[in-house]
Amino acid sequence: MTVSTEGPGTARLACIQMEPIVGQPERNLEQALDLLAAARREGADLAVLPELANSGYVFETRDEAMGLSEVLPEGRFTQALTHFAAEAGMIVVAGVAERAGDTLYNSALVTGPDGYIGTYRKTHLWGAENVVFAPGDLGVPVWPTRLGRISVAICYDIWFPEVFRLAALGGADLLCVPTNWVPMRDQPADLPIMANILAMAGAHSNGLFVAAADRVGIERGQPFLGRSLIAGPQGWPLAGPASADACEILFADVDLAAARRARRLNDFNDILGDRRADVYGMAAPAPEHAE
Amino acid sequence: MTVSTEGPGTARLACIQMEPIVGQPERNLEQALDLLAAARREGADLAVLPELANSGYVFETRDEAMGLSEVLPEGRFTQALTHFAAEAGMIVVAGVAERAGDTLYNSALVTGPDGYIGTYRKTHLWGAENVVFAPGDLGVPVWPTRLGRISVAICYDIWFPEVFRLAALGGADLLCVPTNWVPMRDQPADLPIMANILAMAGAHSNGLFVAAADRVGIERGQPFLGRSLIAGPQGWPLAGPASADACEILFADVDLAAARRARRLNDFNDILGDRRADVYGMAAPAPEHAE
Repeated sequence: MTVSTEGPGTARLACIQMEPIVGQPERNLEQALDLLAAARREGADLAVLPELANSGYVFETRDEAMGLSEVLPEGRFTQALTHFAAEAGMIVVAGVAERAGDTLYNSALVTGPDGYIGTYRKTHLWGAENVVFAPGDLGVPVWPTRLGRISVAICYDIWFPEVFRLAALGGADLLCVPTNWVPMRDQPADLPIMANILAMAGAHSNGLFVAAADRVGIERGQPFLGRSLIAGPQGWPLAGPASADACEILFADVDLAAARRARRLNDFNDILGDRRADVYGMAAPAPEHAE
Repeated sequence: MTVSTEGPGTARLACIQMEPIVGQPERNLEQALDLLAAARREGADLAVLPELANSGYVFETRDEAMGLSEVLPEGRFTQALTHFAAEAGMIVVAGVAERAGDTLYNSALVTGPDGYIGTYRKTHLWGAENVVFAPGDLGVPVWPTRLGRISVAICYDIWFPEVFRLAALGGADLLCVPTNWVPMRDQPADLPIMANILAMAGAHSNGLFVAAADRVGIERGQPFLGRSLIAGPQGWPLAGPASADACEILFADVDLAAARRARRLNDFNDILGDRRADVYGMAAPAPEHAE
């Protein structure tokens, strides 16, 4: 069921900014379901939750992460969200610590009204994640849904413009970004946070909607930035940036197919068609004065 | 000669924001030399001028552009700037309408204290440029200089994150961007212009200095944005954005080798080393619901 009153072709996107707590999976699931229910009451058709929403982020040991992880899609967190999505008629994207045998992945579940859709595994690992998780091995999949074609990237992935490109070239209309953004060096107070700048640039350069759901709070000394954002295919914010420290939900009413139209810039230019694959394939010249 | 008082390893970058006028090549050369002399008096070691600084931008016909173009490096504008650079001990990068036989390119000259360094030809053509110019056929070269390794992109080129990547992977420390930025759709008043956002994102994602010199003014009904910018390898402005409408010069004192250090983010991450070429090479899945 959805209470959205928009006509065909429109969808209400929601980014759920919340505060998972490491080592409290039951509380994290309860918080996620409460906020999902709130998004549903406001008519959301698709909701994005932060990275590692089931487990929290700052693990003291790999064993701790292992104990907080789950098998997809059988795990308790994933099953609960899948049940919610089916019952609510919503698509849900959420970060989750995934266990596959002895291997851990920093993953995202994608589930919807018709059941589990698929899994994304974070391609680019940040900092100490490298001692806990294996790098993603599923590429950047694009899933067709009733709302449009969606893809997923997680946090540091958007530091790599190749990820936006893979999604767009794969036909995605919307890139969902579960994230746990941490401070970058030398952030000026009068400019958007760099993560927001990267999201806007990636949206604009690829004609993609981007829905980034961040966490808030300080976990074992690590602060997180909030500032969740929904950007349109021109790159500009449709909702947010959210606050730096509050649990809240961003909403934006969109027609995901507008991403496809946005790529045609004028009579001469198409943002994907103008790519010069002939040039990009050229071998980079070796620097003559490498350090 | 340079009057810079910084020690070895530092350089003073200048972005010259000016107003070329179409059809007035002598006036444009005079304006460029006056502003270059002003940059030199302030101790600049390297100066970037806007796109098509010799010719102006809005041509009524291809013949008009042909008449305002010149052969590189023999042309009058290029020779005058090469003479200036040698005498001033400066590196100069400037946009120039280039003629090669019957073909026109939207190019940039790169010249320095020891003579002409090289030519860049705009890889991605914007709008009606497509009926005047041929797309660039020289790739994204990187030139070693006494200040560091420099590369060039022109205007719409920075809409393509591949260009920043080619420069960075080619070993560039600094991307010089002669540009004629035009308004983008739906620009909010309270955010940087999208061109500045793309420059900051490209600088940050690649650990590159970016020096973008824009033009100002309205030419045959086409407004230009100004807002020239020098960004550091963290992505943040070191100088600018400049005004929207005044001729002015931005300066920033930099150590270009800092770009190489900036790419090492922490004990685990290196912004170029973290690229997942294995993933980027994967064939993009065909969308199942293409229009």
